[in-house]
Amino acid sequence: MFDATIKAETLKDVVTVVSTLVDEVKFNISKKGITLKAVDPAHVAMVNLQLHSDAFESLKATECELGIDIDKIKDVLKLAHTDDLVTLHHDEERNRLVVGIGNVTRRMSLVDTTGMSDPQVPNLALPAHVTLAAADLNRGIRASESVSDHIVLVGGTDHFELSSEGDTDSVDLRLEKDQLVEIDCKEPVRSLFSLDYFANMIKSIGAAETVSIHLGTNFPVMIRFSIAGGKGEVTYLLAPRIEND
Amino acid sequence: MFDATIKAETLKDVVTVVSTLVDEVKFNISKKGITLKAVDPAHVAMVNLQLHSDAFESLKATECELGIDIDKIKDVLKLAHTDDLVTLHHDEERNRLVVGIGNVTRRMSLVDTTGMSDPQVPNLALPAHVTLAAADLNRGIRASESVSDHIVLVGGTDHFELSSEGDTDSVDLRLEKDQLVEIDCKEPVRSLFSLDYFANMIKSIGAAETVSIHLGTNFPVMIRFSIAGGKGEVTYLLAPRIEND
Amino acid sequence: MFDATIKAETLKDVVTVVSTLVDEVKFNISKKGITLKAVDPAHVAMVNLQLHSDAFESLKATECELGIDIDKIKDVLKLAHTDDLVTLHHDEERNRLVVGIGNVTRRMSLVDTTGMSDPQVPNLALPAHVTLAAADLNRGIRASESVSDHIVLVGGTDHFELSSEGDTDSVDLRLEKDQLVEIDCKEPVRSLFSLDYFANMIKSIGAAETVSIHLGTNFPVMIRFSIAGGKGEVTYLLAPRIEND
Repeated sequence: MFDATIKAETLKDVVTVVSTLVDEVKFNISKKGITLKAVDPAHVAMVNLQLHSDAFESLKATECELGIDIDKIKDVLKLAHTDDLVTLHHDEERNRLVVGIGNVTRRMSLVDTTGMSDPQVPNLALPAHVTLAAADLNRGIRASESVSDHIVLVGGTDHFELSSEGDTDSVDLRLEKDQLVEIDCKEPVRSLFSLDYFANMIKSIGAAETVSIHLGTNFPVMIRFSIAGGKGEVTYLLAPRIEND
Repeated sequence: MFDATIKAETLKDVVTVVSTLVDEVKFNISKKGITLKAVDPAHVAMVNLQLHSDAFESLKATECELGIDIDKIKDVLKLAHTDDLVTLHHDEERNRLVVGIGNVTRRMSLVDTTGMSDPQVPNLALPAHVTLAAADLNRGIRASESVSDHIVLVGGTDHFELSSEGDTDSVDLRLEKDQLVEIDCKEPVRSLFSLDYFANMIKSIGAAETVSIHLGTNFPVMIRFSIAGGKGEVTYLLAPRIEND
Repeated sequence: MFDATIKAETLKDVVTVVSTLVDEVKFNISKKGITLKAVDPAHVAMVNLQLHSDAFESLKATECELGIDIDKIKDVLKLAHTDDLVTLHHDEERNRLVVGIGNVTRRMSLVDTTGMSDPQVPNLALPAHVTLAAADLNRGIRASESVSDHIVLVGGTDHFELSSEGDTDSVDLRLEKDQLVEIDCKEPVRSLFSLDYFANMIKSIGAAETVSIHLGTNFPVMIRFSIAGGKGEVTYLLAPRIEND
C-alpha cells in the first residue's frame, strides 16, 4: 500500500536529484518514508537519497517497491504551482501510480523493477572534509566550463580549491578558511573528476544551501546535502579520473 | 476606402486568433467594422471573427475586401508598446496597406483575394454547453500534451472533463459544476479532437478570459469568446476525430 | 607592465563593441589607458576605441601590446555581477593575461600580435551630422529587418530618416528636428548600408545613450558614442553599398 500527500516542491527536489544520474529508479517505500539508490549507466556515480515520513503531508504505506519513470513525474510537476500538494496512490490492481494535482489526475504505468539492482554504498574512509555554500561551488564550476572537461578538487589545511587546466588556459577558485563554513583537512588532498558529472550534481542542489564535501587523494568524492528542509538527505558519490601529468 | 486607428493590443488579439489557422486572410471591411472567416488548409477547423466599429479609435470605411499576410502584421506589431496606437490606411492606387506606429511607416503589398472563398458557417445543433475559465482549459491541455496527440471532451449533467489516453498512461482534468461558470448539459456528450488544433485555439485566448464551449457526441466543437474588451467576438469550429475503441 | 583594476561593467562595454567586428584584437596599452583599432575580416567596417586611464579603478602600465581573444574575456565576465571589479595583470614571463574576479582567477594565453595591423583611420569630410537617441535607431532597425538586408540613411535639412525597400514592402522611420538632439545638414545626403553591420553596431550601444552620426551621399557613415560614463569613446566606420536603382 502507498497513499501519500506531498508538497510539489519537495517532490521536485527528489526528481531533480535523481534525474542527474538516471531516467528510471526504484522507490523503496515504507511507513518511514522513501529511500532510493541508483548508479548511472556508466557506473561512474551513485546517488543515495532518503526522504523521511515527516517530509510528507500524509503517508500511509506498507513496504513496497515502485519502478518510476522520472520524466513522467517531471511532466506532471510542471502543472504544479509552488504551494500545490501532490497526491500519490499505488493502484495495485493495474500496477499504476495515480498522481493528482488539483483537478488533474495522471495515471502512469510503473517500470518493471526486476532488473533494478540495489547498489551497495561503498564504505570509504575519506580523510578531508569541507562544508561550504553551494553557490560558491557553482561559481567555480561555471568558471571551469570554458577551460576544460575536468575539474580538480584540492583540500589544504586552511583552504579549499577548485581548478581546471586547459590546453592554453587555466582557471581556479580558491576559498580561504573564513570563506568556508567548516574545514577539517589534516594533510593536503587532491582528486580529479569529470566536470560534467560534478557540475550536474552541484546544480541539483538549491542555490541557497550548504553542501558537505568529503575528499581524498585519487579517491571518490562524497557530496552530501539536505533536501525538504532537513527532512531528507542526499549523498552523491563520484569516482575520480586519473590525472595524466 | 479604409482609414482606421486601433489599439496595438486589439490588433494583436485579431492576429493571434487568425494565425492559429491561416497565414493569409481576407478582411471584409465596412463602416460596421471588420469580419473575417477562414478555414485551415486541412479543412479541419474554421474561424469566424467580428470586430465592431467601436473596437477602433477611429474608422472611416466603405465596403471593401483586403487580402492580408498575417505575418507582416505580426512583424509590425512587434514594434508597438502596449498602449501604442496603430494607423491603417488602404492606398488604393498601389493596392497597399500602409501601417503606421509612432514614427515608423510600413507599406505592405496586399494578397490577391480572388482565390479566397467565403466559407459557409455550418448550422449545428449542439446539445451541450459549458462556460469556463480559459486558464482551466490550458491546464488540462498541458497535462494531456505528454500523454497523447488527442483529447476527449466530455460533458456530464454536472461536470465537464478533458481526458487523454496514451499507450501506457492516461490523464484527465475534471471540473465540477461549482468550478464552472455555467453548464447546460441534459445528457452526457463526448467527442475526440486533435490536441494540436484544440491547444492552439485555446492558447489564442487571453488567460484571464472565460470561454464558451458547445459540444455533442462525435460532433464538432464550437468555441466562443470575446476579444477587444467585448467589442469583438470569435467563434472557432473544430471537426471531431473518430475514436478507435 | 600592465596591472589594472576595472569595473566589470566597463570591460563588458569594451568587449561588446569590439566583438561586433572581430574575435581577436590588439590592446595598445599605456599609462593613458587602452586604445584599439580593428577592421572586420571582410574589410567593410572599422572600430576605433579609446578607454582613458580614469575609466580604471587603478592602472599601472608601461607601453605594451596585448593580443586578446575577445570570447575568453566574455566568458570570464559572465561570472561577474554588476558591481564586481576585475583585476587584469600581464604575466610577462609566460605571456599570459591573468584575470581575477572575486575568488576566481583565470590565466589566459595571449594571441600573437605579429600579424595584426594597425589600421589607418581614413580622413573623411562628411557633410551632414545628426545626434539622436540610440533607442530610436534601434526601432528603425527592427522595423527594417523584416523587409530587407539593406538600410538607407537619409539626412534632410530638418529631418533624419531610416528606410528599407523590399521586393513588395517598404518601411521607414522619420525623425523630425524636434525628435533629434541635434541636426546639422545643409543639403540632403543619402547612403545605403548593409543592415546587418549597421544593426550590430547600433545594438552594441547602451539603449539609454545618444549617438552621433556623420553622413554623406554614397559615403561611409561614421558612428560615434561614449562608453564608461564618458571616460571612453567609440568610433565605428561603415562602408556604403552601391544602390542599384
